[in-house]
Amino acid sequence: MAKRGGTPQSKDFSAWYNEVVYDADLVDLSPVRGSFVIRPYGYALWENVQRELDAMFKATGHQNLYFPMLIPMSYFEREAEHVEGFSPELAVVTHAGGKELEEPLAIRPTSETIIGELYAKWIQSYRDLPLLYNQWCNVMRWEMRTRPFLRTSEFLWQEGHTAHATAEEALEETRRMLDVYADFAERFAAIPVVKGEKSAAERFAGAVQTLTIEAMMRDGKALQSGTSHYLGENFARAFDITFNDVHNEQAYVHTTSWGLSTRIIGAIIMTHGDDAGLILPPRLAPYQVVLVPIARGSDAEAVARVGEQARATAAALTERGVRVHVDDRAEISPGRKFHEWERKGVPLRIELGPKDLEAGTAPVADRLSGEKEPVPIHDLPEAIPLRLEAFHDRLFERARAFRDARIGHAETYDELKAKLEDGWVWATHCGDPESEKRIQEETKATVRCIPLEGPSAEGTTCVHTGAPSGYPRKVLFGRAY
Amino acid sequence: MAKRGGTPQSKDFSAWYNEVVYDADLVDLSPVRGSFVIRPYGYALWENVQRELDAMFKATGHQNLYFPMLIPMSYFEREAEHVEGFSPELAVVTHAGGKELEEPLAIRPTSETIIGELYAKWIQSYRDLPLLYNQWCNVMRWEMRTRPFLRTSEFLWQEGHTAHATAEEALEETRRMLDVYADFAERFAAIPVVKGEKSAAERFAGAVQTLTIEAMMRDGKALQSGTSHYLGENFARAFDITFNDVHNEQAYVHTTSWGLSTRIIGAIIMTHGDDAGLILPPRLAPYQVVLVPIARGSDAEAVARVGEQARATAAALTERGVRVHVDDRAEISPGRKFHEWERKGVPLRIELGPKDLEAGTAPVADRLSGEKEPVPIHDLPEAIPLRLEAFHDRLFERARAFRDARIGHAETYDELKAKLEDGWVWATHCGDPESEKRIQEETKATVRCIPLEGPSAEGTTCVHTGAPSGYPRKVLFGRAY
Repeated sequence: MAKRGGTPQSKDFSAWYNEVVYDADLVDLSPVRGSFVIRPYGYALWENVQRELDAMFKATGHQNLYFPMLIPMSYFEREAEHVEGFSPELAVVTHAGGKELEEPLAIRPTSETIIGELYAKWIQSYRDLPLLYNQWCNVMRWEMRTRPFLRTSEFLWQEGHTAHATAEEALEETRRMLDVYADFAERFAAIPVVKGEKSAAERFAGAVQTLTIEAMMRDGKALQSGTSHYLGENFARAFDITFNDVHNEQAYVHTTSWGLSTRIIGAIIMTHGDDAGLILPPRLAPYQVVLVPIARGSDAEAVARVGEQARATAAALTERGVRVHVDDRAEISPGRKFHEWERKGVPLRIELGPKDLEAGTAPVADRLSGEKEPVPIHDLPEAIPLRLEAFHDRLFERARAFRDARIGHAETYDELKAKLEDGWVWATHCGDPESEKRIQEETKATVRCIPLEGPSAEGTTCVHTGAPSGYPRKVLFGRAY
Repeated sequence: MAKRGGTPQSKDFSAWYNEVVYDADLVDLSPVRGSFVIRPYGYALWENVQRELDAMFKATGHQNLYFPMLIPMSYFEREAEHVEGFSPELAVVTHAGGKELEEPLAIRPTSETIIGELYAKWIQSYRDLPLLYNQWCNVMRWEMRTRPFLRTSEFLWQEGHTAHATAEEALEETRRMLDVYADFAERFAAIPVVKGEKSAAERFAGAVQTLTIEAMMRDGKALQSGTSHYLGENFARAFDITFNDVHNEQAYVHTTSWGLSTRIIGAIIMTHGDDAGLILPPRLAPYQVVLVPIARGSDAEAVARVGEQARATAAALTERGVRVHVDDRAEISPGRKFHEWERKGVPLRIELGPKDLEAGTAPVADRLSGEKEPVPIHDLPEAIPLRLEAFHDRLFERARAFRDARIGHAETYDELKAKLEDGWVWATHCGDPESEKRIQEETKATVRCIPLEGPSAEGTTCVHTGAPSGYPRKVLFGRAY
């Protein structure tokens, strides 16, 4: 494990992040470059993400399935942009079962190609459409510079893949899943997001349109937290996915794909964390409440009494659906426990000692406000769920206020450069990829998205080239992970 | 998709199996040899397996986590038996990110080695023990002859890995997880199993003891359906996993591992299926009930009335936790729907037509008995859950009766050979691996296990060599998948 940190966010945000992911027992290094072990506390967070998102996918009519993880290399070459985008990152199996393979196989970096091959077989008629499938799996993209959750060679994600009879239906699906991601981010992860479209330069390799949700981290940078792609007929043509339409004429399907990965854990850490460690959104936190019994080991009677009340309170909370953990480790002091659970970002902590039992109230510490308030012990089962709801709302509002205060407006290139030091900047852009590239070289910022809602660009000119706006609205510039 | 079958089990069980897995839309072929696509209907079955087993793991104190899927080749060589067992099956990544790797990486065939490396880091003191972890993931074992679910190059499973301070605790854990598997098989999959220990020849590569649950398929063959291994200090020594015990002396931990895979789907198919297709155990079936509205499209009023009742009944069933599917496809005849859901093994089918509405009763068809019985429509929400419970019990009892009728006893080698034609055979074995090998060559049967309960071998001699019994009890011989 890495050494215990203590670097403040303001001093070195990147160092703070690296310390926090190890200190909070979310990940560990592995012997394989760029692949990390997700430890139980980190994985429990991912399980909660999966459970909530999966329910949302099913509620919107999707079914899960599973495709093989090895893909023949030749498949990538069938879609020109796709192979250009992904081939530099492929991990390749050349030998198996003690022999050299006739054709090398790539570990999936994403599954459009192998899925295209099967969709061509499954789809015959308009009656087979839409096909609304998703898979939860691991993928591999060989990265040179890796960081836990944010950029790793192997990562876990879900990838939705749908096929539709018309462009209109596929575009609707692309937008629907973007809304699912945004809703999930805000309602479960307490992360306010901007929904928008990516510029041509930032599109998924092979997509006609890429929609994104962008979140602001506490260093003012953007993190792309989920993407939804309209693939047009690109993969349908590459893999010959056709159907007989209602008029019995053969046509290509229109496909979409959309994905959200363990990267969202990085977003949660960097949106909410502070110098003391993580602050976890209650609806995804592995433990929403930690209950720390406090009694000296030398007083056996007090230990028993406190332990009994702790178990009773925990049982009452569990019954109400609260994820509660009783930390009754004997060999560790209460102070060290408080510190550990603060670092691990548990929203609420209940302390319970003999004096609290006498008084009939227990101190409840709030990880976000840092305050401690006595609550009648018999009220805890009612009070805690309400406090968790309020915690979520306060966490979301804090993140939104933080973000909104760091979004500026620029009319000139100099203004853009200056304001990028604070966070994101609204500005007009001509849409020329060459200009975007030069802006990136000079400012390290990119067009994060053309937001679906925002100030009109009518009558304005590009902050960089002076040409007319390439989009109906201003775009958001920002530095990104 | 493979061609629609119709081969009876009695004619060619293997052909029947292959037809059924494709006909019921459980799997499809993939472009990669030995890897299959698990289609939504098959994957929903796996999701139900996962949900129930995962809850059982958590109830016994285990946490989930995730280890990288690529393992340095040199890791396998640290445990002599392990490398011998697994290296012929490895799929090897030699190139990544456009370059040749310095050390080739294997796709995990199982994760003892990489987990050993991390456990050595995480375990320092007896206070860190036991470590009770599990992961759900894909693994790869390059197989020459593959069959969907039963033997595939890539498959999905869970692998539990625990570390303990003493051999006793580790053996207890090994047995506890075997009991979890047996309980799961019987209580959810309706599969009666024999719990036992593997002979030395059939042990997991690197294990001191391998426990197994063995189930009988409808062709009389055995399918190993879950295994739990006591690894002794083998991996602890190979990866230097030591701890300071209560006396502050350094000692090796004792580890276990246990796994259950998508193979269990093969077990479900071959334990319960019949010539008409699948018969699914209600507690794991993706759909427990299918409701088929029956009204001619030409009578719009009848269609509307029947549809309304179908939706109301389905909603009432869903509320009671029943997984119900309303098959209201307009272009497909009721007869074809009945046939399709029979093939797919849905336990109960409710038919609902205008005449049924008038009569106030609906025919409920039972996939196991093949009988149809009218049930008052307003009783359905109460009656269906009870019928599903009874269905589970009948399914389990049928499988148990079938199995028990096909277990014989042999006193001589000739008797053993003769009775193996029917199913399994109790007999005494000396325990010599050479004898076991010769029996396998001559009869195609192996020692499936030394059952934890069964007839004593005291005073008996080996059916093959005439030597004294190598075990306290008789063993079960059988042909196996």
